[in-house]
Amino acid sequence: GYSNMRRSVLGLEGAAEWPAVRALLPDLSGKRVVDLGCGFGWFSRYAVERGAAGVFALDISEKMIARAKADNGHAAITYQISDLEHLQLPKAVFDFAYSSLALHYIENFAQVIATIHRSLVPGSQFVFTIEHPIYMAPTRPTWTTDAEGRRIWPLAGYSLEGSRTTDWLARGVVKQHRKLGTTLNTLIGAGFAIRHVEEWAPNAEELAANPDWAEELDRPMFLLISAER
Amino acid sequence: GYSNMRRSVLGLEGAAEWPAVRALLPDLSGKRVVDLGCGFGWFSRYAVERGAAGVFALDISEKMIARAKADNGHAAITYQISDLEHLQLPKAVFDFAYSSLALHYIENFAQVIATIHRSLVPGSQFVFTIEHPIYMAPTRPTWTTDAEGRRIWPLAGYSLEGSRTTDWLARGVVKQHRKLGTTLNTLIGAGFAIRHVEEWAPNAEELAANPDWAEELDRPMFLLISAER
Repeated sequence: GYSNMRRSVLGLEGAAEWPAVRALLPDLSGKRVVDLGCGFGWFSRYAVERGAAGVFALDISEKMIARAKADNGHAAITYQISDLEHLQLPKAVFDFAYSSLALHYIENFAQVIATIHRSLVPGSQFVFTIEHPIYMAPTRPTWTTDAEGRRIWPLAGYSLEGSRTTDWLARGVVKQHRKLGTTLNTLIGAGFAIRHVEEWAPNAEELAANPDWAEELDRPMFLLISAER
Repeated sequence: GYSNMRRSVLGLEGAAEWPAVRALLPDLSGKRVVDLGCGFGWFSRYAVERGAAGVFALDISEKMIARAKADNGHAAITYQISDLEHLQLPKAVFDFAYSSLALHYIENFAQVIATIHRSLVPGSQFVFTIEHPIYMAPTRPTWTTDAEGRRIWPLAGYSLEGSRTTDWLARGVVKQHRKLGTTLNTLIGAGFAIRHVEEWAPNAEELAANPDWAEELDRPMFLLISAER
């Protein structure tokens, strides 16, 4: 289950895409941060260790919030059980918004993005990651081979947006597939300026240390976006 | 060959993505337009018919420029043979830049984008289309089927940017594959603000009129981008 994943046990350093995410972060010192889908609280703790003035950390899972408080609790972090699908935030109170692999579960994406935009003060950054739509689109998202035996990703239904049900970790997990363009246009429509779009893949050094990551070059699994209010 | 394609014979109306492109265009009346990779000049002519003050229309092909002058000539259009790979443009003289299915042949993309940016006056739009990187990435870009007989697009090498050689129309045509993120980050780096990103697919009405376009829902062929200087 989720608790046994590298990223759950090792924290941020256990996530392959973390160095690329970190490169997108602003200076967190003095920042009032909102962490949307905080999980076990690894990023919230990182933010206060980097000098964040405070972190408002939300997750729908009662168990995760309990463990976040136990393992990554800090006086400057407020952990709260909250369903992002019905996100409500105070207006213009945060200097940085962050979300790791949570927003691809959201059905009402446009409303959540608008809420995040309103919660930030002008000039603030919003950095988030979701599963890449190339990874989410197929109904059968597993590697296959072509007639010559080469590894291919069986892309289909890319433009058919909506629910995708997979059996990852738990049976019947429902994700919301959206085209990359839709994600960007929603941000732009809410008033965000797109600053960086990263379709994560390992670099040469990371590949040398983790040869099995080579398949990530064939199709991206993670999408990292930096936007500015 | 290219001359026999629907879009070459019928002009803009023969291109499936044209209605979506048209929806991204600003009011062209009075605009000084640059058309990069103008082909037979269909868009240049459209622009003057919509009131453009002038069009500077470039294409590398001597034959295409000759036919553009013959079929779509107009006093307000200046057709010129020019290799976009070494694009040179005067500074801050255009109000709108347009390019249809040309920039995915360009190797030195960042330099060309910077040149386009400098050629526009502040507040100008830049609308262009390229082949979608999902379409360009595979070394063998043809539909195949999975074990259950369902149509799949054999995605591979998405993050391996660089040349792709295909035998489309002519043998050994070399295209330059770039990740969608790279295209957007290059625009942002040059100073453009991303306004809209469209991964073209037919709408319900277009599908009803052209049932064979259904495969376009499985993987996008065209990428349409609107940006603002």
